[in-house]
Amino acid sequence: MSAFSALLQNSRRRLLYNLFSRHCSRCISTPSSSSLEINVDLSHPTYMVWGSNTGVGKTLVSTGLAASVLSSAASSNPAKFFYIKPVQTGFPADSDSRFVYRKFSEIFLRRRGQASSVASNHALKASALAAKELLGAGSEDEKLERSEDGLKNLCWYEEMRMRGEETQVVGSELVCKTIYGWKEAISPHLAAEREGTVIQDLNLLESLQRCMWLGVDDGSNGRKEGIWSLIETAGGVASPGPSGTLQCDLYRPFRLPAILVGDGRLGGISGTISAYESLKLRGYDIVAVIFDDHGLINEVPLLSYLRHRVPVLVLPPVPQDQSDNLMEWFDESQSIFGSLKEMMLSAYLERLQRLQNMPKKARDNFWWPFTQHKLVPEEIVTVIDSRCGENFAVHKVQNADIITQQFDACASWWTQGPDTTLQIELARDMGYAAARFGHVMFPENVYEPALLCAELLLEGVGKGWASRAFFSDNGSTAIEIALKMAFRKFSHDHGILLDSVTGNLVERSLVFKVLALSGSYHGDTLGAMEAQAPSSYTGFLQQPWYTGRGLFLDPPTVFICNGSWNISLPEVLQSKSLKLENMIFNSCEELFNGSRESSDLARSYSTYITQQLCLFLGSEDHIGALIIEPVIHAAGGMHMVDPLFQRMLVKECRNRKIPVIFDEVFTGFWRLGAESAAELLGCTPDIACYAKLMTGGVIPLAATLATEAIFDAFKGDSKLMALLHGHSYSAHAMGCTAATKAIRWFKDPQTNSNIIARGRRLRELWDAKLVHQISLHPAVQRVVTLGTLFALELCAEGHDAGYGSLYASSLVRMLREDGVYLRPLGNVIYLMCGPCTSPQICSQLISKLHRRLNEFSQANA
Amino acid sequence: MSAFSALLQNSRRRLLYNLFSRHCSRCISTPSSSSLEINVDLSHPTYMVWGSNTGVGKTLVSTGLAASVLSSAASSNPAKFFYIKPVQTGFPADSDSRFVYRKFSEIFLRRRGQASSVASNHALKASALAAKELLGAGSEDEKLERSEDGLKNLCWYEEMRMRGEETQVVGSELVCKTIYGWKEAISPHLAAEREGTVIQDLNLLESLQRCMWLGVDDGSNGRKEGIWSLIETAGGVASPGPSGTLQCDLYRPFRLPAILVGDGRLGGISGTISAYESLKLRGYDIVAVIFDDHGLINEVPLLSYLRHRVPVLVLPPVPQDQSDNLMEWFDESQSIFGSLKEMMLSAYLERLQRLQNMPKKARDNFWWPFTQHKLVPEEIVTVIDSRCGENFAVHKVQNADIITQQFDACASWWTQGPDTTLQIELARDMGYAAARFGHVMFPENVYEPALLCAELLLEGVGKGWASRAFFSDNGSTAIEIALKMAFRKFSHDHGILLDSVTGNLVERSLVFKVLALSGSYHGDTLGAMEAQAPSSYTGFLQQPWYTGRGLFLDPPTVFICNGSWNISLPEVLQSKSLKLENMIFNSCEELFNGSRESSDLARSYSTYITQQLCLFLGSEDHIGALIIEPVIHAAGGMHMVDPLFQRMLVKECRNRKIPVIFDEVFTGFWRLGAESAAELLGCTPDIACYAKLMTGGVIPLAATLATEAIFDAFKGDSKLMALLHGHSYSAHAMGCTAATKAIRWFKDPQTNSNIIARGRRLRELWDAKLVHQISLHPAVQRVVTLGTLFALELCAEGHDAGYGSLYASSLVRMLREDGVYLRPLGNVIYLMCGPCTSPQICSQLISKLHRRLNEFSQANA
Repeated sequence: MSAFSALLQNSRRRLLYNLFSRHCSRCISTPSSSSLEINVDLSHPTYMVWGSNTGVGKTLVSTGLAASVLSSAASSNPAKFFYIKPVQTGFPADSDSRFVYRKFSEIFLRRRGQASSVASNHALKASALAAKELLGAGSEDEKLERSEDGLKNLCWYEEMRMRGEETQVVGSELVCKTIYGWKEAISPHLAAEREGTVIQDLNLLESLQRCMWLGVDDGSNGRKEGIWSLIETAGGVASPGPSGTLQCDLYRPFRLPAILVGDGRLGGISGTISAYESLKLRGYDIVAVIFDDHGLINEVPLLSYLRHRVPVLVLPPVPQDQSDNLMEWFDESQSIFGSLKEMMLSAYLERLQRLQNMPKKARDNFWWPFTQHKLVPEEIVTVIDSRCGENFAVHKVQNADIITQQFDACASWWTQGPDTTLQIELARDMGYAAARFGHVMFPENVYEPALLCAELLLEGVGKGWASRAFFSDNGSTAIEIALKMAFRKFSHDHGILLDSVTGNLVERSLVFKVLALSGSYHGDTLGAMEAQAPSSYTGFLQQPWYTGRGLFLDPPTVFICNGSWNISLPEVLQSKSLKLENMIFNSCEELFNGSRESSDLARSYSTYITQQLCLFLGSEDHIGALIIEPVIHAAGGMHMVDPLFQRMLVKECRNRKIPVIFDEVFTGFWRLGAESAAELLGCTPDIACYAKLMTGGVIPLAATLATEAIFDAFKGDSKLMALLHGHSYSAHAMGCTAATKAIRWFKDPQTNSNIIARGRRLRELWDAKLVHQISLHPAVQRVVTLGTLFALELCAEGHDAGYGSLYASSLVRMLREDGVYLRPLGNVIYLMCGPCTSPQICSQLISKLHRRLNEFSQANA
Repeated sequence: MSAFSALLQNSRRRLLYNLFSRHCSRCISTPSSSSLEINVDLSHPTYMVWGSNTGVGKTLVSTGLAASVLSSAASSNPAKFFYIKPVQTGFPADSDSRFVYRKFSEIFLRRRGQASSVASNHALKASALAAKELLGAGSEDEKLERSEDGLKNLCWYEEMRMRGEETQVVGSELVCKTIYGWKEAISPHLAAEREGTVIQDLNLLESLQRCMWLGVDDGSNGRKEGIWSLIETAGGVASPGPSGTLQCDLYRPFRLPAILVGDGRLGGISGTISAYESLKLRGYDIVAVIFDDHGLINEVPLLSYLRHRVPVLVLPPVPQDQSDNLMEWFDESQSIFGSLKEMMLSAYLERLQRLQNMPKKARDNFWWPFTQHKLVPEEIVTVIDSRCGENFAVHKVQNADIITQQFDACASWWTQGPDTTLQIELARDMGYAAARFGHVMFPENVYEPALLCAELLLEGVGKGWASRAFFSDNGSTAIEIALKMAFRKFSHDHGILLDSVTGNLVERSLVFKVLALSGSYHGDTLGAMEAQAPSSYTGFLQQPWYTGRGLFLDPPTVFICNGSWNISLPEVLQSKSLKLENMIFNSCEELFNGSRESSDLARSYSTYITQQLCLFLGSEDHIGALIIEPVIHAAGGMHMVDPLFQRMLVKECRNRKIPVIFDEVFTGFWRLGAESAAELLGCTPDIACYAKLMTGGVIPLAATLATEAIFDAFKGDSKLMALLHGHSYSAHAMGCTAATKAIRWFKDPQTNSNIIARGRRLRELWDAKLVHQISLHPAVQRVVTLGTLFALELCAEGHDAGYGSLYASSLVRMLREDGVYLRPLGNVIYLMCGPCTSPQICSQLISKLHRRLNEFSQANA
C-alpha cells in the first residue's frame, strides 16, 4: 500500500502518546463489574455491517457508505461518519479501518467538493505481536502499557486534512477506528488464543460501547443530523469473536439494525439466505441486503425469498485486479450507495418515530390486564424494544432517544428464567418446532416434543408420585383441570353415585368444596377463583359469579424481621403454651427441618385443622380437595406459609382420603431454589399444576400431573366417563419443545452454574449480609428470600397497605431509573431473577434497592 | 476423464433404449394430479446430503460413504447403495452421479475384497441441450421422447461389473442416478429457465419419490439390512431448485435426516452454522456435520455451538491438484467415513425404535384431553413425525416402516390454516420473536408485536365497532374475560350499585345470567361452561360446580338435505302460518340475505325471543349478556343456526341494553369464508372472542375485543375498578407475531389465492356437485358447508347418535387409510381445510369421503 501515500498530500501521521492516552482513558478502560449497562444511542443512524461470508466486500460497502454520507455534506450542513472495526485480524497488514480511511480520502480528492474534510484512523489496542508489527521492534513497544485484558494500548493515530474547492471550513469528518488488532490473518478466536490475548466479551462490548458514544455525545439534545456510525463485523455473521462467542451472539445486546453484505457468486444465494436467517434467529432487523454482481442475477431469488419486504441492492462487479485503485468502481457504485444511504436513513427515522409513538398507540389500542388505565399516563408506559437474557432493552427519551437496559426484576409475571445463551437456543428450537410440527392434534396421537416433555415432567417434578401428564395453556386452566380430577377421585373413593347417562347425582344434592388457605391465589378463571378466599379479585364488581366454594383457613406465615426468621400465627392459633424457641429461626433451612413435626407447634396445627374439618363436615358440603400453593403465596403478597403447617394439612387430608393438589404454577422449576416446592415441603401431592417458568419463559404451556390412581378414576367403557376437558393447543409442539429445553437447561450444572447439592438445589443467590441489613431497615416490615425470590413488605397502614395501594410507586420509579424494572404488589415489592442468574447480579439488585430504600423512607418520613 | 477408462476393465457402457424405457415408465412418469402422496421408506437408512456452500465436497462425502457401506459387504452379507442426484447442472460434463460411480469403481478395484461388485450410473432426464451434449447430435436426439415437463427422457445407462478375489457372487451393488440434468453450470433455476425446461416442484418430488422406492421395494417385510440410500442436493442448503423454490423448502415434504457437509476454510464456521440453522428452521434433523481440514480447527467452535450434541467429523485436506485421482485421500479418509456410516446407522436405528415405541410410551405417560383411554389401544395411536402445511407425516408399519401422509382434516381441533410456505415463514418469525423478545411483561408496557397485532385485529375483525384488544391464552379464558366485561357494562348501564371497597353489591342479592343458545359451547373452564346449556360436558360427573347460569333458547338450524338448504324449527316455533317458501333455500347466500328481516319468520323469531325474555325478567335474575357462536355451533355438532334468528337476538338485546358477545373462537379468521362471522351475520357485537386460527395455528393466543363503551365501564380512580384478570403470558411476543403474520397472509390475495370479492370472501372450496350428491346419500342426515368447513351428520338413532357415540369409527378408520385424518364428533364427521387450501384438494377429500360412504352404509345395512 505504499504506492498509496503519494496521494495523501495533506496527510499527517502521528504517534501522540500523551495526547491520545488521555483520550484513551475515557474511551477504553477495563470494566471491573461482571455486568455492563448497555446504552444504545438513537440520536443518529447507527448500523452494523454483516457479511454472509468472509471476503464478500463488507469494507467496500462501508467505504461507499462513508463516501456517500460525507460527499453530500457541505460546510452549511456538516457531516461526521464514525467507522468502527471492533475486531481486526491480520493486523496491521490488513486494516479495514485504514482501508476506509484511505479510500475515502482518495475518493474525496477525486470528487473534491466545496467543503474541506478531515479523516482520521485510530488503532486502539493490539496483541503484542501486532503492536510490534505496527510500531516496529524496540523501545517503543516497551513503553506501551498493557491493559488488563493482556492487550497493548496502542493509541496509534493517523490523520489527513483535505481542502475543498472554495473554503477552508471543514464540512465533513471521517473517524475510523480499529479497537482490537491481532496479527495472524485467521479467525479472531484463534488469533487471540495463539497470541495469548483472549479477551472477555463484556470487555469487548464495553470498549465498543465507549467507542460508539465517544465524539458523538456532545451533551446536546435531540437528533444529531449529519452524524452516522457504522460498525463492521469480521468474517461471516456466525464467525467467532475473540473469545469464541459467535459474533451474531456477541453483539446481540446492542441489537443494532443490520446491513447484510450478501454473496453474488455461484452458491451465494444460499449463503446469503442462511446468513440472513442466522441474524433473524438472534432477533436482528436487517434493513438491506447488498452484494456485487457476478452476472448470476442472484437478486431475483433473494427478493422472492424476502417477498420484496427487504430491499436488495446490486453493486457493479468488483475488479479482481489487485492493482486497481477501485476509483472507477466507486464512481459506478455511487448511486447504489446513495440509495442504500437513503434506505438506512428512512429506516432509522421510521424506527425512531415508531418508538416515540408507541406509548400513545398502546394507550389507544390496548386493554392491559390488571391495569387501571386512568392511572397509566403516556409518560409512564415502558416501550420494550427487545429482551436479552434477564434484561429488557427499553426506549427512553433522556437528552436524546436511547435504548437502555432494565433488569426484568418482575420476571415478566414470574415467567422468566433464560439467560442470553438459553434465549438464543430456545429461539432456534422454537423455529425448528414450528417448522417441523407447527401444531398437531394431541388426543390419541403422539409426537416427539409432547412425549419428551411428559417424560421429563414425570421424571422431574413428578418423580416418585406422578404417572400422567395432562397439558393445557396456563396456570388457571391447569387448576380447573386439577379440581375436576380431584372431585372425580373423591366421588370414586367416597362412593358417590352418579347417573351414567346424564352424569348427574343419583341421590341427593351435594356440594363439593375445597380446603384452601386464605391469601392463596390460583388463577382468574371462575373455577380457579372459586377455590380461593374472598379478596379484591373476587367481589361482585370483578366476578359476579364468584361464591367462594371453600373452607379457607388462615395460615401461619414466616419471614425475616430484624435479621431472623419469625413465625406469625393467626389469632386462632395463638396460645401461651407455645414455646418461643419454636417460633424463631436462624435460617430458612431450619424451617424446613422434618424434626419440627414432633414439636408442640405441629400438634397445635394438627388440632386446629382437625377441628375445622370436623365443624365443616356437619353440613351437606364435602371437602373434595385440598389445594395449596406450597411454601409461597405469590399473588397474595409473597407471603411464606410455615411449611410445617402445610405438611400437617397434607397429612390430615391424606387421612381422610381427600385428594391433595399442589399449585406449583409459581413455585415450580427452581423458582424457590428446588425443582419443585413439593421437594422443599418434603411431601408429595396427588395432583400438581405447573406453568410459567416451565417453558423457560418464552411461550405459554401448562401441565397438570396426576397419580395413576387419579387417572384410573376416569377409566370406563364410555367416552362420557373420560375427562372431557381440553384446549385446542393441548401439548402444542413449540411449548413442549421449549419446556424440554428449559427443564434440562436449568437442571444441568453444565448450563446452570447455580446448581449445587448434587443437582437438588440452587446456591444462595441473595447476599445474606445485605438481606440482613435490609431486614433491619425501619421502612421494612418483613423480608422473604427463597431461591430466585427476594420480597419485602414496606411498613404501611390504611390505604397505603394492600393490593390497591400505590404506596410503593415512588420506590419503583427510582429503581427503574437505576435500571431495575420491578412491579409492586401494593406495598409489597419483590425482585425475581432466573435460575441461572449469577449471585453477583442479584447482589447488585438488592444493593440498589437498599440505597433507594433510604431515599424512599426519607421522602415518606 | 478419459484417462479414467483404462481402469474400468469390466466396464460395459450401454444405451439400452428399449430395455430401459420400460424401466423408466415405472420410475418416472409425469404426475397428473395437483397433489402428491408422500411416502418415505424407513426399511433402510435414507439420508440427504446438504452442503453449507457450493464446492464443499458433498460428492466426495457421498463417494466415501458409498465405499464405506459397500466395502464392508461380503457375499454372505450383500449391500446395495443407491445414490441419487435429483438435480445436476453443467451436465453431462459435470455429473456427480458419474463421479460417485467411477470413484467407487476405482476404490473397489484398489481395495478389491472377497466379493464381486456391480456399479451402474443412470441419467434419466435432461434438457434438450444437455441431452444433445450427452448423446451427440443427430438422429438419436430426435428419437428421444419429450416428457410433459419439457425434458428429454434419456434412459442413459452405464454399468461396470467388478470381480472380487475369490468369488463370482455379487456382494455389493452401487446404483447411481441423475434424475434431471441441465447443461449450463449455473444455479438450477437459471439453467432450467435458460434451457426452456422449468419443471414443477411436484413433478420433481414425484420423480424423486419413485426413484427412492425403485429397486428397494421388493415386497419383503421389515428392515432391509445392507440397503442404503443417499440423495445429494445441489449447491448450498438454500440454493434454488429448478423452479426457483429453495432446495431446503423443496425437499421438506420428505424431511429426510440430513448430513451437512460443512466448510473447513476461513469463514467456514459461519457458513456451516448458518446452513445448519437454515436446515433447523425447516424442521430437518441433522445427524452429523463433516468437512475437510484446512488447518483452521473449525471443528472446535462448531462443536461448542452444537454443545457436542451433533458429531462433527474432520476429513483430511482434499488435494487441490486436479490430476490427483484422490485414491490416497480416500484411503486416509476411510476410518472417518466408517465412523460417519456408523453414526448414520445408529441414528437411523434409534429413530426407528423411537417411532415404534412411541404409541406404548404415549399410553403410559399421557393423559389425553377428551379421551377415554380404555378405548384407545396402542394400535390406533397415531405417531405424527411432523407436519408440512395441511398434512401430517405419520409413521405406519405396513410391510415395513414408512412415513406416510394424512391430510389434517380435523385441522388439529380447528386451529390450522398454514400452507407449507406460511408454515416456513411462521417458523422463521417464531425464531425471530423468541430471539428478540422471548416473552416480556405486557401491562403498562408496549412492544412491537403486541401493538401490531392489536392494530390488525381492530382494523380487521374488529373494524367498525371494537377499539380495545385484551389478550389471553385460549378461547375459554377469552370467554371468561368477555363475560366479566359484559356484566360490568350491564351493572354500569342499569345502575347496579357496588361497594367501592369490597366490590360487593350494596343493595340486595342479585344474579346475573346469560342469554345463550342450546347446543352452543364456549370452553371448558367453569365460567365458560356456566354460559352453556346442560350437556354431556356439564353433568356432576364432569363438572360438579356447574349450575348453568343462563336462559337457553332452542335455535332454528339450517342444513343441506336432498340437495337444498332447509330450516329446521324447534317445536316451540313451529306454526302452520309460516309459509314453506320461507323455509327452503337454493343457496347458502340466500340464508344470509338481509331482506329476510321483513319476513313472517323474522317476526315469529322476534316474538318468541321477546316472550322468553319477559318470562325471565319476572325473577330476581338479570340477563347480563347475550353470548352466541355466530352461524355455526361447532363443538355442539357443527350445527348451522339460522342467521336470521341470531340477528333478531342481537336486535332484541340491543333494545334492552344487554351487551352482546360473539364467540368467534371457532368462526373467526376465514373459517367460515369471511374474516369474521359477524360479517356474515351482518351485525356487530359489543365484545368478541378470538383464538385458534388467529395465530395461523402454530401457537396459543386469544383476544377479547371490546368497544370503547365497554372499556369505559372499567375506568376509575382505583385500581380495584380495573379488570383484574390476566394471564402470565398476556400478549406474548411469539403469539402476537404469529397472529400478525397469519392474519396478513390469509387476507392478502398475493399469498392466498382463495381470496375473492375484493378481499371480503373465500371462493367456494367444496365442489357443489359433489356436495349435492353427498347430501342425497341415504346414510346422510344433513350436510353443512361454509368456508373451510364441510360437515355431515350420519343417520343414526339411540346410542349411535350424540357425542358419546362410536358410530362413525369405521368410516373414520377407512378415511385414515385413504390419507385423510379426521376425528368424529359422535355421529357427525367433518372435513376442515385452511383458508389457503386449493379447491382441488378439497374436492379430492370429499370424493374420498363419498366413496367410503358407500362402503360404510353397505356395512351398516
